[in-house]
Amino acid sequence: MNQQVMTDYLLAAIHGFKAAGIKRAVISPGSRSTPLALLLHRDPEITCWIDVDERSAAFFALGMTKVDLQPTLLLCTSGTAAANYYPAICEAEATNLPLIVLTADRPPELRGVGAPQAMDQQSLYASHVKKMVEMTVPENTPNILKYSFWQAATTTIEALKQPRGPVHLNFPLREPLLPDFTRTCSIQQNIAYLPTQQSLPAAVLTELAPLFMKKGLLVVGESLTPSEAETLHALANHLGWPLVGDPLTNLATCGETSAHFLPQADLIFPQLDADFIPEVVIRFGRLPVTKNVLLWLSGLPEGIDWLFVDESGQWQDQLHRSAFLLQLTIEDFVEQVSKLPSRPQPEWFQPWQKLQAVAEEALATTHSLTEWNETAAVRILQQTLGHDAQLLLANSNAIRFVDRYGTVTGSAYQVFGNRGVNGIDGLISTVAGIAAASQKPTYLLIGDLAFFHDMNGLQLLKQYQLPVTIILLNNNGGGIFSFLSQNTLSESDFVPLFGTPLDLDFQQAAKLYGAKWHAPATLTDFASQIEQSLTTPCFQIIEVVGLQKDPVIAWQALQQEFQERISNENKR
Amino acid sequence: MNQQVMTDYLLAAIHGFKAAGIKRAVISPGSRSTPLALLLHRDPEITCWIDVDERSAAFFALGMTKVDLQPTLLLCTSGTAAANYYPAICEAEATNLPLIVLTADRPPELRGVGAPQAMDQQSLYASHVKKMVEMTVPENTPNILKYSFWQAATTTIEALKQPRGPVHLNFPLREPLLPDFTRTCSIQQNIAYLPTQQSLPAAVLTELAPLFMKKGLLVVGESLTPSEAETLHALANHLGWPLVGDPLTNLATCGETSAHFLPQADLIFPQLDADFIPEVVIRFGRLPVTKNVLLWLSGLPEGIDWLFVDESGQWQDQLHRSAFLLQLTIEDFVEQVSKLPSRPQPEWFQPWQKLQAVAEEALATTHSLTEWNETAAVRILQQTLGHDAQLLLANSNAIRFVDRYGTVTGSAYQVFGNRGVNGIDGLISTVAGIAAASQKPTYLLIGDLAFFHDMNGLQLLKQYQLPVTIILLNNNGGGIFSFLSQNTLSESDFVPLFGTPLDLDFQQAAKLYGAKWHAPATLTDFASQIEQSLTTPCFQIIEVVGLQKDPVIAWQALQQEFQERISNENKR
Repeated sequence: MNQQVMTDYLLAAIHGFKAAGIKRAVISPGSRSTPLALLLHRDPEITCWIDVDERSAAFFALGMTKVDLQPTLLLCTSGTAAANYYPAICEAEATNLPLIVLTADRPPELRGVGAPQAMDQQSLYASHVKKMVEMTVPENTPNILKYSFWQAATTTIEALKQPRGPVHLNFPLREPLLPDFTRTCSIQQNIAYLPTQQSLPAAVLTELAPLFMKKGLLVVGESLTPSEAETLHALANHLGWPLVGDPLTNLATCGETSAHFLPQADLIFPQLDADFIPEVVIRFGRLPVTKNVLLWLSGLPEGIDWLFVDESGQWQDQLHRSAFLLQLTIEDFVEQVSKLPSRPQPEWFQPWQKLQAVAEEALATTHSLTEWNETAAVRILQQTLGHDAQLLLANSNAIRFVDRYGTVTGSAYQVFGNRGVNGIDGLISTVAGIAAASQKPTYLLIGDLAFFHDMNGLQLLKQYQLPVTIILLNNNGGGIFSFLSQNTLSESDFVPLFGTPLDLDFQQAAKLYGAKWHAPATLTDFASQIEQSLTTPCFQIIEVVGLQKDPVIAWQALQQEFQERISNENKR
Repeated sequence: MNQQVMTDYLLAAIHGFKAAGIKRAVISPGSRSTPLALLLHRDPEITCWIDVDERSAAFFALGMTKVDLQPTLLLCTSGTAAANYYPAICEAEATNLPLIVLTADRPPELRGVGAPQAMDQQSLYASHVKKMVEMTVPENTPNILKYSFWQAATTTIEALKQPRGPVHLNFPLREPLLPDFTRTCSIQQNIAYLPTQQSLPAAVLTELAPLFMKKGLLVVGESLTPSEAETLHALANHLGWPLVGDPLTNLATCGETSAHFLPQADLIFPQLDADFIPEVVIRFGRLPVTKNVLLWLSGLPEGIDWLFVDESGQWQDQLHRSAFLLQLTIEDFVEQVSKLPSRPQPEWFQPWQKLQAVAEEALATTHSLTEWNETAAVRILQQTLGHDAQLLLANSNAIRFVDRYGTVTGSAYQVFGNRGVNGIDGLISTVAGIAAASQKPTYLLIGDLAFFHDMNGLQLLKQYQLPVTIILLNNNGGGIFSFLSQNTLSESDFVPLFGTPLDLDFQQAAKLYGAKWHAPATLTDFASQIEQSLTTPCFQIIEVVGLQKDPVIAWQALQQEFQERISNENKR
């Protein structure tokens, strides 16, 4: 009887999830969650994935959700299992991804009385979920079945509304925990949140119109789809303004680029004098990872018009500058602006273009692809992908290297990152999710500390034989700190706290998880391995060994070369 | 200037932590936490341990704190790093352990504006910390230095007050993040929370006195020190009552035991008829892990007097039975009761004793230590330790096996578990903490799923060359579910969701982390490896291969043997 009641109640909830668009679930084994796990597993409309480590499972779900922005269910048992989801939930919150977190819980009579594996799960994720629903104890009266359906559906939809984000439903369940498989759900209800479109009123457009006739700059920090990136290239062409954005924007890798795009912004921006101060800045999403762009923007004088475009309506301007927030998708914004007159001013854009040309020359000189090192590997990788591939850039050095050394690519592929809260956790699991949801050749560029942090994610790659190539930049420790002020510390302070060498032979990890292992000795070797992986992708790891200080030296050399070339140009 | 202000402020806080008893810190590398990390690292009175994986770091700190109940600092950078602490924090809350969690944060002007690696950290751990302090932005006025000292000291003391538990201090820090090493702290203040002792008023004692003349039962579920365990044995002797408690109570392993202790409770309790119903039950802490004791207790009739003794004053009685809560330490309770008259009734205790004797015979018959399997390994391990060793029992099967097959040992050692929320996470890191804080030969009995979950913890064992022997019960998946109702499921439901085979050759993990690896082929081999490890401990893994169903068959055989012997006894 109990089993029937519980089954009816949970089937109603599962119907609600499906009605709101759920098609996949990531399940971690546990006892209290048994009925939900079994009913999801038996549902032909839901694809289930299994992961023993809940931290990894949540990043796996995050990766899937990144690919298509569709919601992913997460299910685990009670207790610390649920706490393991927290890092990925924080990242999902910061990057507006709809994770639907289901936790099984003890029923009320076993709470706060020291029952095994019981803890307060009611506000477990604090402010980091958009909505938390404490589901009631299972009943199967018509009203409660409707409640169960409705809570599941509307909470999922809440996660999908702008700004998207994770939500949490906590299910108190009593023993016996096996469901009654003979039960079915008769709920037929449809439920849908109908999309609306936002546009600027004509009066506002008229007011803004003069801005687009001025000297402007477009700054993008949002993760963009390739199609959104193309749209911004079109806008840059229309306005005749320079366009900057980091690798996650896909501006360099979307295929259809514009000459107004400046991929070497990190090199260029420290050289900009007063002639480069714009009259208008339009920002899309967060600031790019490019540190020198941030520094330059924050030093701009008053009197500039700043617009902030964000479809989620979040006013995330750490510069505290943008006067106007426009809650529009990039497509809608560009469509409206394209109808307004523009006045491209060649004398405004040409100096930017010249700097970009010099930057590319300096890059070709100091990083000529004759030597085998981390930087060369990054350049080759960034240039070789294509074929509809996907690339996840880890924190912290990997994304910065691609930002500095990446240029516009010949063929298109999509770049991802976990740049909401920039953790070094969960990146292997995230790439597994990206590959699982898309089944395309997928790449992860990652340092050894981040690789270590999420080695459990390798189990997903093994278990599901996902087409993922990991490029492991192994400099035996925290390479990022060699770029920061910590590099002035004595060795006795630096090495234990920041250098943190792990002294691990990761080839053993490859053996443990059955990954193919390559440690190329030449750039040609490396390039051919990448090329081969595009046509015959498999689970493999390519190690690129480096020293923590080398990328610092390489970057300094490039900056110096660039400065010298600029001085020479100016002397002419 | 900024650096001086920040340094003065943080030194005052560190002085506060030390004044309240902090002697050790576990630090995870990060940028925003740099000044705290460096000042702790430079402080000669604080021992610092480094761990890249924050989830593992927090369990490492938990393990240290288990050994001596002294507080341990945890420090990490902003963002998801802090979320990784959550599982261990939940376990620390449930087992009342004083973790002092420090998180670095962005300053106010960088919050809620999309700044990199920034998220709301103010109520990050929700209800799972006893206290959360949002530290103010660094200043070095005399009043604010006192504030910094005071917050650090009193918040640490809050963690140490009953019921003990984790606390959280969030430090907003501005760049530049390097401290000024020339600064010193002039705060001289002492600060101490003076212990009080609780005792029962004479009137209450008089009222309770008649209870101790009746037929009673002592039930213990608390993690006990060996000395507390001895005290309870003395109480059982004094009262003439049976005493039950699981391995974590150390009743079987404290050295000085009483004949009133019934280690085979899980076997015995299903056989108890009405003659065994006590007049009084005294419970200490949580219920034991022993499922049949829980089932029997919950089925007891009304009209029994239940006392609940808990020094933390938490009324954690999932049976909702105990009428009286006595907030006393075990020592204080036993001291007071020992002064009261008792009336041991042999006819009350002898039947219990007889069952225990039959249980031991049944165990010796069905588990005669002639065959090499998981159960035999557990029995040998439980009997062989001593020499002041320490044993951490993982969830879920490991602790149950020792509970079922463990008997009173000849020499003393201390048993630990993570039985607050019973997670399968963090157990390798926890054992690393236990070994690091004690530097005694330390053992971990663990299944393959829990081992997998926390393989990153092996890095701690490698890095600090800790004297830990891991006994890996490898049955390729979730063995616990073969004991639960899930075992009635079809294979297509059971294997993917509950059996969850990982198909990993863990010898590769041993190679990765430089652990010695043994896969004994005989019981003699195994026993001699354990014996050797007691005198020359090192970081090693001993694999015991088994099948998921075998322990179920073994347990059923033992239960049947026991029942038959009881029936035969009764026929005589």
